[in-house]
Amino acid sequence: MAGNRAVAYKGPGKVEVIDTEYPEFDLKDAPGINPANIGRKVPHGVILRTVATNICGSDQHMVRGRTTAPTDLVLGHEITGEVIECGPDVEFIQVGDIVSVPFNISCGRCRNCKERKTGICLNVNPDRPGSAYGYVDMGGWVGGQAEYVLVPYADWNLLKFPDRDQALEKIMDLTMLSDILPTGYHGVVTAGVGVGSTVYIAGAGPVGLAAAASAHLLGAAVVIVGDMNEQRLAQARSFGCETVDVSKGSPGEQIEQILGVPEVDCGVDAVGFEARGHGKDASHEAPATVLNSLMDITAAGGALGIPGLYVTGDPGAVDDAAKKGSLSISLGTGWAKSLSFTTGQCPVMKYNRQLMMAILHDKIQIAKAVNAKAIPLEEAPQGYAEFDAGAATKYVLNPNGYIKN
Amino acid sequence: MAGNRAVAYKGPGKVEVIDTEYPEFDLKDAPGINPANIGRKVPHGVILRTVATNICGSDQHMVRGRTTAPTDLVLGHEITGEVIECGPDVEFIQVGDIVSVPFNISCGRCRNCKERKTGICLNVNPDRPGSAYGYVDMGGWVGGQAEYVLVPYADWNLLKFPDRDQALEKIMDLTMLSDILPTGYHGVVTAGVGVGSTVYIAGAGPVGLAAAASAHLLGAAVVIVGDMNEQRLAQARSFGCETVDVSKGSPGEQIEQILGVPEVDCGVDAVGFEARGHGKDASHEAPATVLNSLMDITAAGGALGIPGLYVTGDPGAVDDAAKKGSLSISLGTGWAKSLSFTTGQCPVMKYNRQLMMAILHDKIQIAKAVNAKAIPLEEAPQGYAEFDAGAATKYVLNPNGYIKN
Amino acid sequence: MAGNRAVAYKGPGKVEVIDTEYPEFDLKDAPGINPANIGRKVPHGVILRTVATNICGSDQHMVRGRTTAPTDLVLGHEITGEVIECGPDVEFIQVGDIVSVPFNISCGRCRNCKERKTGICLNVNPDRPGSAYGYVDMGGWVGGQAEYVLVPYADWNLLKFPDRDQALEKIMDLTMLSDILPTGYHGVVTAGVGVGSTVYIAGAGPVGLAAAASAHLLGAAVVIVGDMNEQRLAQARSFGCETVDVSKGSPGEQIEQILGVPEVDCGVDAVGFEARGHGKDASHEAPATVLNSLMDITAAGGALGIPGLYVTGDPGAVDDAAKKGSLSISLGTGWAKSLSFTTGQCPVMKYNRQLMMAILHDKIQIAKAVNAKAIPLEEAPQGYAEFDAGAATKYVLNPNGYIKN
Amino acid sequence: MAGNRAVAYKGPGKVEVIDTEYPEFDLKDAPGINPANIGRKVPHGVILRTVATNICGSDQHMVRGRTTAPTDLVLGHEITGEVIECGPDVEFIQVGDIVSVPFNISCGRCRNCKERKTGICLNVNPDRPGSAYGYVDMGGWVGGQAEYVLVPYADWNLLKFPDRDQALEKIMDLTMLSDILPTGYHGVVTAGVGVGSTVYIAGAGPVGLAAAASAHLLGAAVVIVGDMNEQRLAQARSFGCETVDVSKGSPGEQIEQILGVPEVDCGVDAVGFEARGHGKDASHEAPATVLNSLMDITAAGGALGIPGLYVTGDPGAVDDAAKKGSLSISLGTGWAKSLSFTTGQCPVMKYNRQLMMAILHDKIQIAKAVNAKAIPLEEAPQGYAEFDAGAATKYVLNPNGYIKN
Repeated sequence: MAGNRAVAYKGPGKVEVIDTEYPEFDLKDAPGINPANIGRKVPHGVILRTVATNICGSDQHMVRGRTTAPTDLVLGHEITGEVIECGPDVEFIQVGDIVSVPFNISCGRCRNCKERKTGICLNVNPDRPGSAYGYVDMGGWVGGQAEYVLVPYADWNLLKFPDRDQALEKIMDLTMLSDILPTGYHGVVTAGVGVGSTVYIAGAGPVGLAAAASAHLLGAAVVIVGDMNEQRLAQARSFGCETVDVSKGSPGEQIEQILGVPEVDCGVDAVGFEARGHGKDASHEAPATVLNSLMDITAAGGALGIPGLYVTGDPGAVDDAAKKGSLSISLGTGWAKSLSFTTGQCPVMKYNRQLMMAILHDKIQIAKAVNAKAIPLEEAPQGYAEFDAGAATKYVLNPNGYIKN
Repeated sequence: MAGNRAVAYKGPGKVEVIDTEYPEFDLKDAPGINPANIGRKVPHGVILRTVATNICGSDQHMVRGRTTAPTDLVLGHEITGEVIECGPDVEFIQVGDIVSVPFNISCGRCRNCKERKTGICLNVNPDRPGSAYGYVDMGGWVGGQAEYVLVPYADWNLLKFPDRDQALEKIMDLTMLSDILPTGYHGVVTAGVGVGSTVYIAGAGPVGLAAAASAHLLGAAVVIVGDMNEQRLAQARSFGCETVDVSKGSPGEQIEQILGVPEVDCGVDAVGFEARGHGKDASHEAPATVLNSLMDITAAGGALGIPGLYVTGDPGAVDDAAKKGSLSISLGTGWAKSLSFTTGQCPVMKYNRQLMMAILHDKIQIAKAVNAKAIPLEEAPQGYAEFDAGAATKYVLNPNGYIKN
Repeated sequence: MAGNRAVAYKGPGKVEVIDTEYPEFDLKDAPGINPANIGRKVPHGVILRTVATNICGSDQHMVRGRTTAPTDLVLGHEITGEVIECGPDVEFIQVGDIVSVPFNISCGRCRNCKERKTGICLNVNPDRPGSAYGYVDMGGWVGGQAEYVLVPYADWNLLKFPDRDQALEKIMDLTMLSDILPTGYHGVVTAGVGVGSTVYIAGAGPVGLAAAASAHLLGAAVVIVGDMNEQRLAQARSFGCETVDVSKGSPGEQIEQILGVPEVDCGVDAVGFEARGHGKDASHEAPATVLNSLMDITAAGGALGIPGLYVTGDPGAVDDAAKKGSLSISLGTGWAKSLSFTTGQCPVMKYNRQLMMAILHDKIQIAKAVNAKAIPLEEAPQGYAEFDAGAATKYVLNPNGYIKN
Repeated sequence: MAGNRAVAYKGPGKVEVIDTEYPEFDLKDAPGINPANIGRKVPHGVILRTVATNICGSDQHMVRGRTTAPTDLVLGHEITGEVIECGPDVEFIQVGDIVSVPFNISCGRCRNCKERKTGICLNVNPDRPGSAYGYVDMGGWVGGQAEYVLVPYADWNLLKFPDRDQALEKIMDLTMLSDILPTGYHGVVTAGVGVGSTVYIAGAGPVGLAAAASAHLLGAAVVIVGDMNEQRLAQARSFGCETVDVSKGSPGEQIEQILGVPEVDCGVDAVGFEARGHGKDASHEAPATVLNSLMDITAAGGALGIPGLYVTGDPGAVDDAAKKGSLSISLGTGWAKSLSFTTGQCPVMKYNRQLMMAILHDKIQIAKAVNAKAIPLEEAPQGYAEFDAGAATKYVLNPNGYIKN
């Protein structure tokens, strides 16, 4: 009998690889599944043998105990796989296809999906618009840091790679299409980045680096990345970014040294709600720091892309307001400068096909930019730990040995 | 000798009509003028005999003493006039033209103007991008609630009405082109309003009503206006809006009674930083109320247009954070719903020509919608007082008797 | 046993109502069906009992013998119906729903559908992108001028009306959502029509009138419609349009009498390849007349929306070039004026939800604008004949007696 | 006394460098000047000492005798210069600035300029919207292939380089900002080119190569350039383009060999009205060849950017229709594929600042891409001749010795 192995959350600070069920074409009761989704039929789904599945910074919010994720939740929403079984309603996707799975699950049949807003699909999460695999409060679809995973609405959701051999050869790049490359790209696009822009990206984690690589791809003139982790800043410099060390103070002055002016055209928040202060405040959390700083250093008329996650409740927050998801924002500053702001999950399907083309034709080297490293599924706990400790590395799990290197 | 009469700020709660200078083609020292602008030559300017000049809600912020406006500042940034003198560099505007003046002054020669971002022109205010007539910290250009006023960069700034007689006949509508109609329109456009939209507009003052009329003009399906002033809500109902009385509680439930769902596609903040609470909190200021409420009642994927003014400093604010322009925003709610936000002054020149066309061809009755009322210049103090007391009226000053009614 | 009655093409100039098959969840061989589609399974489809189904000007191209449509082709692509059976893969649409069917069939699973380009779906027509019900060379999906019709990919394609009673009450308006209202709207949107625009629409047939009504809905300042059929021009005037009689000459001069200038901001071609000349040439076909005329009368920087159909082959054309779909276009004129052009089928799903909202909230009276008239299915031949003779009427077939009036 | 030397058209096939007037701040009678512009005051202008001024393909139309250009017309609309005198109305541009001049002259004060449509300014050419330096029927502004040239509306028109030394160092790249780089960029932008696109560009002259370089800058996946001049195709290959030799036949088949499909997402016409046939028809003009071919090879839903010039009259055309600017276009093909088309002059000011940033930060090597070569002003006749003979070279005139290399 086919079994399955998967990465599960085992309480604050702890993940384990566990034995679990091989997926079938319906949703079974399991830790984290939304009760209203139990028993849901998935004839439109496919079962994938996982080719690559990445550890994401947003998984860390759960693993650090900053959410209400239940023990034994199977993690993983960055999934690339080979189709090994198709449900009866699947018409165009075929067994043997190598496919990228957008992390946000969508039905392809609701108003929002029809409007390309797949990050807020109305039909997959009974609680609210928007869903994801292996994530707390996102509907309860089983995570994909596993050998096998079920993907619903397969004809709609999946991006098929045109050639199997080429796909496996470039798999370390293509695996970034499930989340961080489109997410970073969405961040810079919504920040208004285009040919000739000057850009500041707060955060040199994988999403920040993906945003930076995307900004280069879009023709930005100068891409500046800020962080307080020197190893991650070095990673940013490795592919042509300028960097700012925010542990030395607010970014304005350092930006001025680079550009001659203390302002950029476009600002990106690739940090989110676990932000720490700048300068002497760098040692403790100050959740509005990044947003307020971006309003300072984005020129009048600019835009802020905010792919970094902000939550509605954070039990581990520094103060009562932040525990309810409320932040002290200098909105007056933003208003005086006519800034605009775009928040929310990236609607991956809006971008993944074109980014795949850019990868396949060598226009972006995203695996290098984020320092991707493949590790066996069984080493996931170590990957989580190193990533949490600040390694300038994007960990790619290799559950079925597809990745050779 | 030509003199001038103008409305001046005389300290908290007080305006007076004073004798003042007839304008010349340069900027003279005067209360509120930016020192760096003193002596600035304005050969590209024209002198207008004022045809109509309106009292604006944003003037009230100054008059209420909520800003650092100096005594004797001449007020007024909503100006329509007849050209009576042209500076030597003016080429296309001619004496006798009846023209609308965008409230935001712009040079037509900087990067931002070339990109149509005239609300943040780089060359007219020495302190920061963006400027306006008769407004504190906006460069010190003399206000237009006066018999005569100087308008710089006239070929660029002015919108000429095609026919003098037609213009004077429709003057009560056309006078709204200088500020509130484009400002309301910008609010709904940036909120994503289009054919078939459902819209909630917070605030039934003149800008809120102009936003509502604009939403109708754009083909919105349902336009809902919220306020706690019953007279203003009645005004909104007079031209086909639904209304919500926020003194009875948060708007969600009342919206549900209208639409069947507690959410709209698009949200507009036409209140700004002097917001009061909802329901039982309606008696005191709670500056983040409107924004947080809009995030609650705007559907996932929606947008918020924020024409309501937020400031960087407010000495009269309810708490220390608000005094610095910092508000406690439930950003997590907005992020979970993938909302976007647009702030700032409306760039009037982006919209005023097309809105003029709509007025001239009877597609919008903006004077009726905002209940415009012409009064003599000398009665300005009374107009300010009534408006501040909550009259559902837009006061239009008539300094030179052009308006007959 | 359930049978079916349907309108069929019976050779040039002739349509008949025939007995035909009740639909099943697969495609059977029939006149006009694409061989590659025979036997195609449609588990994602629903069967509709037709509520309203309209005769379209593009049907007339076939009936006039201007295409290669085979005898016995069942006609009809403007369909509104009640769901009476759901295929096994249908998840959200339910029996009893009253729904509008976009005339262009799309799969919701290909690249183009994911990009909202449903007029050129890649999976429904084996010959080329794009498909429609009951139309020659469009894949062979059976037409809907019938009592019953099969609609594939129902969860994706169908627009459900929120309330059954309200839907039936407004059915004469809502039936226009399947084609002509979105098509006319697409024409004006791609022509750049917005608040304050001046617009010229060539052709006062139902699509032209729908374009005109859409232009009003979008806030256009002046909407001018040109035709040589006085009855249709009177119809245009009935809802606030200006008109031009092109039998009296090219439209420029008449436009100048209306606007004071011989040019408009936006031009729409709602005529297509069967255009006749203007003025003294009005008695014979001159297929490039409308396009060349629009380039003359659209102001520099404007855009042309071209919903009128142009074909790749027209056996009945006036000359050899036109027989191959080649027209003599004054491109130099367009280039000198920096015009842009948008052609092709309207992607109905991009617009139909918002237009439904506009109808349900009384923002547009499209049935009145196009002079909609319900007739029994059995009177379809007479409807075709009257429409072809130039009646200023949109004929709505009422096969199952839903329409009471 | 200051004189001037300039390149003048001396009849079909002939240019000469002549002695001419040093410019003053008004327009004097001269060959090609529009009578209505004679005596026009230009207090808003500056006089430039030319730093670089390029020979353009569109100059060749005149020199080949394909227009009504008068003898002694001073040529040249691609101008970069140093400001040596400022008119009295100039406020922000200063003597000593190194500036790029957009080839399309615009006033910055009309409706079109305010809408960023500077290619069709209403105030600079008395005959029609749109103007250019040194070009027949474009208003009669004196050409800039000269030592000195007058630029009107200098504050509006000129793009100032931020640093003089840096500007002179990169002058061979920056000189392309006056026309061909923005023009090529406009071509690909209006063709819808973005990250991941496949693009076909017809024509490997300087504009085609600039379009190709722009497509790379925008992140295109595959850029294919077609021409029948092997030297120019080699130039395209030198910076990463694929190529198609249209003398071997229509491009579809060769595109299929490159992409696996015979279609691209985006098509660009960088040839214009002097197009020749493909394959065996390559030896003679066939002015609609490029457009019809682009409709064939652009995928359904795509767009065509048409920066190549089409004229309203061409005395040297192959047939009577083409003499009037009429071309036989297979519009039916385009319509069936829902293509859109954008024609006209590039509005340079919409793009030149951001492209300058891309050059200054080494994101594009446009001088290399077009094989720029500086020659003395006096060698202009030889440059014209070599360029007309098909040299894969962009000739940059160096009238005042600024260019050192």
